[in-house]
Amino acid sequence: MTKNSQLIENSRPQHFLSIDGLEKQFLVDILDDAKKFASSSNFDTQNSHLLSNHLAVNLFFEDSTRTRMTFEIAAKRLGATVLSPNSTRLSTQKGETILDTARTLKSMGATILIVRDSSSGTPHLIANHLGEGIHVINAGDGRHAHPTQAMLDMFTIRQQKGDIAQLRFAIVGDILHSRVARSQIHALNTLGAKEVRVIAPKTLLPTEIDRLGVTALTDLDAGIAGVDVIMVLRLQLERMQGQLIPSTQEYFRCYGLTIDRLARAAPEAVVMHPGPINRGLEIASDVADSERSLILSQVANGIAVRMAIMAKLACV
Amino acid sequence: MTKNSQLIENSRPQHFLSIDGLEKQFLVDILDDAKKFASSSNFDTQNSHLLSNHLAVNLFFEDSTRTRMTFEIAAKRLGATVLSPNSTRLSTQKGETILDTARTLKSMGATILIVRDSSSGTPHLIANHLGEGIHVINAGDGRHAHPTQAMLDMFTIRQQKGDIAQLRFAIVGDILHSRVARSQIHALNTLGAKEVRVIAPKTLLPTEIDRLGVTALTDLDAGIAGVDVIMVLRLQLERMQGQLIPSTQEYFRCYGLTIDRLARAAPEAVVMHPGPINRGLEIASDVADSERSLILSQVANGIAVRMAIMAKLACV
Amino acid sequence: MTKNSQLIENSRPQHFLSIDGLEKQFLVDILDDAKKFASSSNFDTQNSHLLSNHLAVNLFFEDSTRTRMTFEIAAKRLGATVLSPNSTRLSTQKGETILDTARTLKSMGATILIVRDSSSGTPHLIANHLGEGIHVINAGDGRHAHPTQAMLDMFTIRQQKGDIAQLRFAIVGDILHSRVARSQIHALNTLGAKEVRVIAPKTLLPTEIDRLGVTALTDLDAGIAGVDVIMVLRLQLERMQGQLIPSTQEYFRCYGLTIDRLARAAPEAVVMHPGPINRGLEIASDVADSERSLILSQVANGIAVRMAIMAKLACV
Repeated sequence: MTKNSQLIENSRPQHFLSIDGLEKQFLVDILDDAKKFASSSNFDTQNSHLLSNHLAVNLFFEDSTRTRMTFEIAAKRLGATVLSPNSTRLSTQKGETILDTARTLKSMGATILIVRDSSSGTPHLIANHLGEGIHVINAGDGRHAHPTQAMLDMFTIRQQKGDIAQLRFAIVGDILHSRVARSQIHALNTLGAKEVRVIAPKTLLPTEIDRLGVTALTDLDAGIAGVDVIMVLRLQLERMQGQLIPSTQEYFRCYGLTIDRLARAAPEAVVMHPGPINRGLEIASDVADSERSLILSQVANGIAVRMAIMAKLACV
Repeated sequence: MTKNSQLIENSRPQHFLSIDGLEKQFLVDILDDAKKFASSSNFDTQNSHLLSNHLAVNLFFEDSTRTRMTFEIAAKRLGATVLSPNSTRLSTQKGETILDTARTLKSMGATILIVRDSSSGTPHLIANHLGEGIHVINAGDGRHAHPTQAMLDMFTIRQQKGDIAQLRFAIVGDILHSRVARSQIHALNTLGAKEVRVIAPKTLLPTEIDRLGVTALTDLDAGIAGVDVIMVLRLQLERMQGQLIPSTQEYFRCYGLTIDRLARAAPEAVVMHPGPINRGLEIASDVADSERSLILSQVANGIAVRMAIMAKLACV
Repeated sequence: MTKNSQLIENSRPQHFLSIDGLEKQFLVDILDDAKKFASSSNFDTQNSHLLSNHLAVNLFFEDSTRTRMTFEIAAKRLGATVLSPNSTRLSTQKGETILDTARTLKSMGATILIVRDSSSGTPHLIANHLGEGIHVINAGDGRHAHPTQAMLDMFTIRQQKGDIAQLRFAIVGDILHSRVARSQIHALNTLGAKEVRVIAPKTLLPTEIDRLGVTALTDLDAGIAGVDVIMVLRLQLERMQGQLIPSTQEYFRCYGLTIDRLARAAPEAVVMHPGPINRGLEIASDVADSERSLILSQVANGIAVRMAIMAKLACV
């Protein structure tokens, strides 16, 4: 898969599959558009004609609540019709291939396919085979990418802390399994972050992570010293095979973000998390509920950013 | 939890959590509003602007068909956007707390949360923590309350039998486990019913039920003598732990409502049931299908009453 | 059940339950109407008022993706409100009868019930008991009928091959269990097809199939010789009890449609399949993807044909 499989010839985007390979200006344009949508109220009639002739389908082979719902809300706020079938009800359960399912949805009139799968590459696969007239958005694929999550994180940082080029970042947690971390790293690099550190136990650090231009650390206290933004990852116990962490208590003792630890970061440092949070596992309750936490802002901004991405792809 | 946690300072309602603690005039206002909605047709454009900027979410931790669907229809008839995620898909399955799920939905722009849970108090808990800008409606919580069901029952009684103050009532069945019965009793008391009896085997009668101002009886034949309205409860076998009833046949023999037994009530007595009915268990088929049965009217009125409650809370 | 239980006295249709018993002109009218809908774009405002006061409910006791979704899209393109509850969430799971569930939906204001069930006759049963003011559409019942599938097949044939009376047809596969085949046969007979052959191993051929006016054959090579349209059926392994086929490999060897075999049909012969397809089981991948395959056209036409049927029943 080439870097630009999401772009059509005139560099207009057809799909939104990964941050990797997109230019800074394109990301900035989306963030600027999202600002307008964020300032509009819930179901503003001003926006509800933008995709009124579109059919968006949540094609989630892997389940999710918040991503599914925020895409659904975003599409409806743009006037699209949205179908959100159960993952257990998809025809792949009856032996149909993923591509046949996608082609069938296109034949039904779907113009936007929001794809989530536990296998890396599924959204690319679909995008590469469906031809014109349909836009594929990656809503998370395996360990590969979750680009709309990274975009809403970037939006939230700009909204709360200003220019990303002036800021130092620490991404903390299960870097190895995290598609969120990979997309965040690409977005921060593209937008010129001053420094990006990743912090995890050795077992949860990918080898050669430094190739992505980040500094890998195993000590949380040292790692968050002086950073402006701490991006905590969800500990996805369901994805860990074998003994990657000794115990959840031990994990919290070494890598849980507490108020004491937060004090080591820069004075006005903020805390982010893609949710759903595990209180007392990767993040202490009082940190999650503190004024430094941007977690609920991230959720709210997820709607505006997804509106901007869908409008960018599908509006003529 | 105080009685008035559902009211904001100027006694304007923010939430609808229980009948208990609400004033008669407030209930009567809702019933009067519902009358207008009941006379409008399915998706009357006249009403479809009332909540057009609202996002209502069915937050059902405990599953349901008719309550979920009637709320969805009611909200759509008022022009709201509605999301109705699977109970099995909610993030509480991934370790998120109920409050975090609710806060996340508020951040997504939800303005109406319709909450159902198998634990008593969940809707109050959420209402007490979400702050302003959102309305919580209790769609059934544990053994505690099901206030919109009680309101649609009151509406149906007024529609078919007139002034509640002139009528005698018998509530028959599993009083112990029934949130419906508790809400019905509060509503009937507030609206000044002439007499309220509850009839059940001893094992299904809460101790100290008489504190609610009702007469408890264990004999059905004696209990329904002369009453104007018989409110049959669903036998929720799934909630009964242990041997609370000897057998379903024995239950029907002693407490099933038959045509013969119905003859002991007042001449024009009517029969109600919140559904879904178990034919031949708590109610005989010919009673359910008779002209005395208001069961399908209850379903139809559920839409209008829920429209009235949502409009009351959310329209400015 | 009488042949015309789907028609009301003045021969205006109330329900759409089976092809059997409908007159040729009625089928032709639907196909002509569908042509108009097929030429309109996704959510054309021109059509969106036609059912704007209607509530359509997908009452699927047996699950499905494409049928459920195409009905949902079709109804929404006509402006209807659509509810599509999970089959696992229906109250029949709590002991409610199918008729009580249907009556409850009617009381909620449903005006169109789209019914699918694994038992033959369920849509008729419901239609016969619900009275006026509601339209029942059969979306597949047991081994009996799947009339909207047959109609979209007829539409696709007319669109691609012209007059059905000039064409020879072969239906290949599990005739015994197939409601699709039964409805296709009735539709082809009513529309005057030149010849209809059914081809299957003996174990998958119903006895007395020739009473339907078709020729039954067990040899695929001989059977498809000279036909203009090959309608392949899905091998529904989930419905086969016992050893009706020796193995899936053996089935493909004898009854799988390959490019070589396709060459035995008429020069411009086309291939159809109701989907989801089992590649390499009843149909070879290269056949499914060839220019002769109408499979994706069938999906697209399913929307227009279902719009036409719903509009025919419900528009005054």
